Amino acid sequence: MSVEICTVGGFSEVGRNMTAIKIDDEVVLLDMGIFLPAIVSFEAEEGHRNLPTQKLIDIGAIPDDHVIESWKPLVKGILLGHAHLDHIAAVPYLAGKYKVPLYATPFSLEILKAILHDDEMKLPNRFVPVQPNTSFTLTPNITVEFIGITHSTLQCSMIALHTPYGVILYACDFKFDNTPVLGDKPNYKRLQELGEKGVHTLIVECLYAHKEMKTPSEKVAKEMLQDVLYGVENKGKAVFVTTFGSHLPRIKTVIESGKKLKRKVVILGRSMGKYIKAAEDLGLVHFSRDVEIATYKSHMKKILNDVEKNRGKYIVLCTGSQGEPGSILDKILSEELPFNFGEEDHVVFSCKTIPAAINIANREALEARLKKRKVRIFTEIHVSGHAGREDLRDFINMTKPKHIIPAHGDASMKEALGSLAEEMNYKIGTNVFLMSDGQKVAF
Amino acid sequence: MSVEICTVGGFSEVGRNMTAIKIDDEVVLLDMGIFLPAIVSFEAEEGHRNLPTQKLIDIGAIPDDHVIESWKPLVKGILLGHAHLDHIAAVPYLAGKYKVPLYATPFSLEILKAILHDDEMKLPNRFVPVQPNTSFTLTPNITVEFIGITHSTLQCSMIALHTPYGVILYACDFKFDNTPVLGDKPNYKRLQELGEKGVHTLIVECLYAHKEMKTPSEKVAKEMLQDVLYGVENKGKAVFVTTFGSHLPRIKTVIESGKKLKRKVVILGRSMGKYIKAAEDLGLVHFSRDVEIATYKSHMKKILNDVEKNRGKYIVLCTGSQGEPGSILDKILSEELPFNFGEEDHVVFSCKTIPAAINIANREALEARLKKRKVRIFTEIHVSGHAGREDLRDFINMTKPKHIIPAHGDASMKEALGSLAEEMNYKIGTNVFLMSDGQKVAF
Amino acid sequence: MSVEICTVGGFSEVGRNMTAIKIDDEVVLLDMGIFLPAIVSFEAEEGHRNLPTQKLIDIGAIPDDHVIESWKPLVKGILLGHAHLDHIAAVPYLAGKYKVPLYATPFSLEILKAILHDDEMKLPNRFVPVQPNTSFTLTPNITVEFIGITHSTLQCSMIALHTPYGVILYACDFKFDNTPVLGDKPNYKRLQELGEKGVHTLIVECLYAHKEMKTPSEKVAKEMLQDVLYGVENKGKAVFVTTFGSHLPRIKTVIESGKKLKRKVVILGRSMGKYIKAAEDLGLVHFSRDVEIATYKSHMKKILNDVEKNRGKYIVLCTGSQGEPGSILDKILSEELPFNFGEEDHVVFSCKTIPAAINIANREALEARLKKRKVRIFTEIHVSGHAGREDLRDFINMTKPKHIIPAHGDASMKEALGSLAEEMNYKIGTNVFLMSDGQKVAF
Amino acid sequence: MSVEICTVGGFSEVGRNMTAIKIDDEVVLLDMGIFLPAIVSFEAEEGHRNLPTQKLIDIGAIPDDHVIESWKPLVKGILLGHAHLDHIAAVPYLAGKYKVPLYATPFSLEILKAILHDDEMKLPNRFVPVQPNTSFTLTPNITVEFIGITHSTLQCSMIALHTPYGVILYACDFKFDNTPVLGDKPNYKRLQELGEKGVHTLIVECLYAHKEMKTPSEKVAKEMLQDVLYGVENKGKAVFVTTFGSHLPRIKTVIESGKKLKRKVVILGRSMGKYIKAAEDLGLVHFSRDVEIATYKSHMKKILNDVEKNRGKYIVLCTGSQGEPGSILDKILSEELPFNFGEEDHVVFSCKTIPAAINIANREALEARLKKRKVRIFTEIHVSGHAGREDLRDFINMTKPKHIIPAHGDASMKEALGSLAEEMNYKIGTNVFLMSDGQKVAF
Repeated sequence: MSVEICTVGGFSEVGRNMTAIKIDDEVVLLDMGIFLPAIVSFEAEEGHRNLPTQKLIDIGAIPDDHVIESWKPLVKGILLGHAHLDHIAAVPYLAGKYKVPLYATPFSLEILKAILHDDEMKLPNRFVPVQPNTSFTLTPNITVEFIGITHSTLQCSMIALHTPYGVILYACDFKFDNTPVLGDKPNYKRLQELGEKGVHTLIVECLYAHKEMKTPSEKVAKEMLQDVLYGVENKGKAVFVTTFGSHLPRIKTVIESGKKLKRKVVILGRSMGKYIKAAEDLGLVHFSRDVEIATYKSHMKKILNDVEKNRGKYIVLCTGSQGEPGSILDKILSEELPFNFGEEDHVVFSCKTIPAAINIANREALEARLKKRKVRIFTEIHVSGHAGREDLRDFINMTKPKHIIPAHGDASMKEALGSLAEEMNYKIGTNVFLMSDGQKVAF
Repeated sequence: MSVEICTVGGFSEVGRNMTAIKIDDEVVLLDMGIFLPAIVSFEAEEGHRNLPTQKLIDIGAIPDDHVIESWKPLVKGILLGHAHLDHIAAVPYLAGKYKVPLYATPFSLEILKAILHDDEMKLPNRFVPVQPNTSFTLTPNITVEFIGITHSTLQCSMIALHTPYGVILYACDFKFDNTPVLGDKPNYKRLQELGEKGVHTLIVECLYAHKEMKTPSEKVAKEMLQDVLYGVENKGKAVFVTTFGSHLPRIKTVIESGKKLKRKVVILGRSMGKYIKAAEDLGLVHFSRDVEIATYKSHMKKILNDVEKNRGKYIVLCTGSQGEPGSILDKILSEELPFNFGEEDHVVFSCKTIPAAINIANREALEARLKKRKVRIFTEIHVSGHAGREDLRDFINMTKPKHIIPAHGDASMKEALGSLAEEMNYKIGTNVFLMSDGQKVAF
Repeated sequence: MSVEICTVGGFSEVGRNMTAIKIDDEVVLLDMGIFLPAIVSFEAEEGHRNLPTQKLIDIGAIPDDHVIESWKPLVKGILLGHAHLDHIAAVPYLAGKYKVPLYATPFSLEILKAILHDDEMKLPNRFVPVQPNTSFTLTPNITVEFIGITHSTLQCSMIALHTPYGVILYACDFKFDNTPVLGDKPNYKRLQELGEKGVHTLIVECLYAHKEMKTPSEKVAKEMLQDVLYGVENKGKAVFVTTFGSHLPRIKTVIESGKKLKRKVVILGRSMGKYIKAAEDLGLVHFSRDVEIATYKSHMKKILNDVEKNRGKYIVLCTGSQGEPGSILDKILSEELPFNFGEEDHVVFSCKTIPAAINIANREALEARLKKRKVRIFTEIHVSGHAGREDLRDFINMTKPKHIIPAHGDASMKEALGSLAEEMNYKIGTNVFLMSDGQKVAF
Repeated sequence: MSVEICTVGGFSEVGRNMTAIKIDDEVVLLDMGIFLPAIVSFEAEEGHRNLPTQKLIDIGAIPDDHVIESWKPLVKGILLGHAHLDHIAAVPYLAGKYKVPLYATPFSLEILKAILHDDEMKLPNRFVPVQPNTSFTLTPNITVEFIGITHSTLQCSMIALHTPYGVILYACDFKFDNTPVLGDKPNYKRLQELGEKGVHTLIVECLYAHKEMKTPSEKVAKEMLQDVLYGVENKGKAVFVTTFGSHLPRIKTVIESGKKLKRKVVILGRSMGKYIKAAEDLGLVHFSRDVEIATYKSHMKKILNDVEKNRGKYIVLCTGSQGEPGSILDKILSEELPFNFGEEDHVVFSCKTIPAAINIANREALEARLKKRKVRIFTEIHVSGHAGREDLRDFINMTKPKHIIPAHGDASMKEALGSLAEEMNYKIGTNVFLMSDGQKVAF
């Protein structure tokens, strides 16, 4: 058999993404991510971290790559599509044993390095930066192409493997945003060309395959956020905004809003600081021209003391969007950081609550604490970074794949993409494969 | 006692709004609306209409004004805030017996006349147009002011009664939209002036008092709708958009999009046509310069035959947003109107499904029929026309009322506004009154 | 390959069950059911029935058996597990072309005959009754065994195929009820023996594989129903009970309750009458000794007139549990049948609302009509007939199958059974197969 | 005015119940409970307890009795209906300042004493035991009667105040259980007599006023629990059951089941031990004849070590039903107590998850930890202790109150009871009062 695909992780849950693709006797690995809830839940129970790799596999936190044990000698490279933790954060635990280079966009590699640095880990693998919309020869049989796409962080890519059997296209995660706030529009032209050239198999996220919509542009989130920041009376009141640490487009909007409002934007939090630093080091953004970023406690304290005294002169952008213990908002409310929220101060949640019971409880608890202090709360100022059903339909129409494998979802999400494909005259079991973690399909 | 307020209707449900306010020995009536679900459910069961007034009261379709029977001789005027059916459509059944003038903005009066014309009814009352942001002397003791506000149709107003005891402000329905697509921004300045002058009682909608948000601007709906119309491949495909018939700002966006896409916009449906005609007659919009509007079957047929042949050249805007039987979309699918939906034609639902079981079932059935024809469906391209919790907080801060009565909601909505008021140092039972239909409170 | 299984229908939805099993060059068909929502929705739209077979396949109402076209000459028999419509009601449309006998328990065959009679259809197939807990030789290679099991109608069976490769066990639908109200306890002993003999593959329902429970016994429904009938004041009030027409154990409970309360039980409705008649003809129940059953309009009218006059002397058991138009409750409320519900009459819904939007809307509308007449409503007096997760675990432990195929469910239900199996050391993709409609797996 | 009622607490939330009733110039207080979520949330944030009374009021944990400050000198007695914490646990903080006796059934007083002992608090008030179904003269004008009723703990009572103006009946909390597992049936006869005598006002719980049902008898929970304990294979496996500590009828069922299964029942947990001890001291139950109860850690450890070795010989009944940190189940999983859950051990949750986000998250986390150990989980083996809509209707029919005040619920629950009352020809605002915390109504 010529092409074989193993759905290592992320095909039975949203997280710990990893796919292995065997072209004749060469194997390519795509993504190595974590399943954050498993780690959170384990830590909540056991109270410590720095777990060994096998333990992380056992608790479902990272992909179980034993299923490709026999393929190990054949692996030629590890390709990473974008910088989110569910796509790269298992690299420190799994990449080492493959002794092959890691290929990713510069931004993803910077984030990976920062993770390794934080955890005081080292990897023997070579790091090879790949610019979006470029390609390179991995082996005589396999050329790898990174195609720039829009999502909720920077330098996100679909990955196309050009093989003797056609293109294998890996498309996790993406949205089709025609008016992105930061970075370029999707490279539709190239996707269409691949469709004409011949896509053998499309491995594609299905998170929102059931949502009958085109996912709105990040520009819509910008409008909503500015509506709140400009349109609600906040004179003399503190304004805090929280979002995902990696969401640089959203951060950009907050910074622009600060300029317009003549409020100084200060950014608090190590995680958010890490993403910004990576982007700045690569010249992708220049936020620190306009804002002050604090990642150390003493610095944060100093800033918060200033904010306290001049609450009408700042926008504080910080972590805490999921109500998570240890975030900046949690620390302020627990008096680990000095700031007294007062009546009609603003806290803007520019995010969604990721729907796990622990997040819902954490957010509810955080909001209750804010309300006791009579803080005004603004929620759901957000749009998703994932393709809706109608984006996926456009995508399949563009790329005309012979086979489709839904990724990045649970059973009902995969079945939703399956039903979309059947609407488009594919057939589940024939050319659409609803696979679980650890399964293989051969062509 | 000097001021007495009777919450006639709309204080135990969302619909059939009516409030009576007694100032010494003079009474003013505010709004007379229907509760549509009661009528729909009755008709579904009984299969006919033209019900007598008492029957409509018995089934809960219109306000039960017997509770103000003793006030009848004192009534001086009926004031209507805006043109939605849950605020004006009971006028034909109830207004006659009061033999006093009806005061409303010109647009609301036009719609009322159209309703009367459709139902072949007549009213003895005089119709007095009141421009937004003007006032008039109703009696020596009561001056009435209409204050322009943003909502999801045209010429919507809050109504202020200037009385010897202070201002009574009636604020149903509204949002605070700083970038409206059609019409002016809210008259914040005047609201603040009223607050300084002294608001005795605020009667205010509480539909979204539990939503921790500022309701997004209509501009956001415009962005989302254009994202779908411009950003999804629709070459050679039919594009249908459906929304609420009275939502003229949304209709304006569709028309503008048609121009940009070089597709001719055609509007089908009596209800939608009625609202447009009223607005055009008053010079508020000039849609028919750009679009063709069909309200009669023969005209619709002709247009749909053209659309069938030139599906890439039209946008069809029509009724059917709730999946309602008898709407244009329903008639097309039932072959009462000639159009064959085909693979990858678009239907865009620029609305929300009003959350009643019958609507949910109707929409689901309509969507199932569209999907059988392989139509692409885009849902929830919408923002609300009602104030969120943080808009309501701003509003109360502006107007500083002595007393608050939540309107336009069920028990949990009223309690949500009650809890907001308590956050702002009001007290339920003391200066906030959670009242049900048919109750009175005296000051 | 020796054993091949085709999941014809009921593996992507709950309904239109059909499985084909190929043992070497012989094929057995299991169940031929309908997907009722597809028919309801089609009829709602098109307004007629008596559809041709191909149309029924196209709208998803019956299994699409084209996928086993090549197996047609090999088919040796059609086996039906129990009498519910989602398991037998496609027989009139599909069985004819296979020209092989139909095997089922006597009760299932009676129901099938009644369906054929109602629809004025005939089948060329021979009908072969099989008593529960007996077996017969279908072919030299295949012995078929019907194993008695508890569910929510009579003479339900699991079906075991004894083949040279081991037992193939088909277990749709069942619960493990140790205190059944009608009929015998499950034949656990035989299931254990099969486990020891060696089960090659288990095809098993997964409807409630996600529910962390053992499904309660029908005895619990009996307690709840009697609690309402005996414990609520109903002197001089009419008492109506509605349940599923085929639920003979529930009907038995109502009849017993009537005796205790000294109220005469009358049963109205063709569907309910059909199931009772079938059971009586076979001597399985003797309800008509105690109750009067009316299936024709004139008879129903006469009875209802009596009930009207002596409302304290009857319990009326009838159809309408889903609020369905055309049911007895609907006809009474629409004045097609003569009975005036009055204040504090009782209507007991001894059922669940099957969770489709149309059912929810129908039930809501029916309840609203009852409430307008001030009727007292008792809902959810019910327990399920389907195995919970912990029943399924016991079942798998008993039968120790080598392979498992979840049936009778959508994607998330199948994945729930998959996860249960993985807890029990099975592996999805290796010995657990999450299959969709129209797929095949070979061993 | 002669009768005045102040809804001090429990009228805007489920918890911190307290009502004050003024008859001419004498005042009676009914219940003084806590709102547990406020305490849990406060402790989670602040990490300590032993809060001063005013702080407990500020965070909403106990009733704010400042609203009856002016009535303080008039208070003649504090009456407690039953032993649940939301009805008695604020007594230690609030009762002292009233310097009047506390009246309650012996069981409630025992629990109150145990709470005081645990918290090392003392009260100056005299404790006066009142047997269910007896009465006493509180003042010449007020005779107090405790009427035995069924609920989910022991010696629960409705409280009737016989006054010159008629009976004021306080009915929180209760169900109508005609087949109780422990204790007597409701005293329907007396309720009817009160109805005939003349009930001035009924203050009644509304928690499930929206549930169209008669709440099932505790006997149903017994059936379900025994179905699981007897009907699921558990030979050689550990069986743990968890329920609410105060639910003595449920505990009785577990003990009886242990006898039948020939498994020794051991009860672990201070809270559960406290309720059992109180009941045994009063001779209401004799559980310790049959079971071993461990409330100290060393004792629990010894027992669990035995259970570990002889897992087939025990049923362990313990706390943890809400997944709460610090419960026995939590401590076992955290290795604070010695027991290793193993494959196919049973944990039966004979309870509901009280619907707060923190409980849902706690339970989910606890279940996840159990599943990691491959434990079998049985959930929702429970029936409620609160009256459903149809019980409430029967109750109102029995007692025919002139006025109704819904208690023990939020806005939507109160409105549900309001709508029930309106079905029964009452009128909100006229003789039904939907009151919030801290309001007063005078008659």
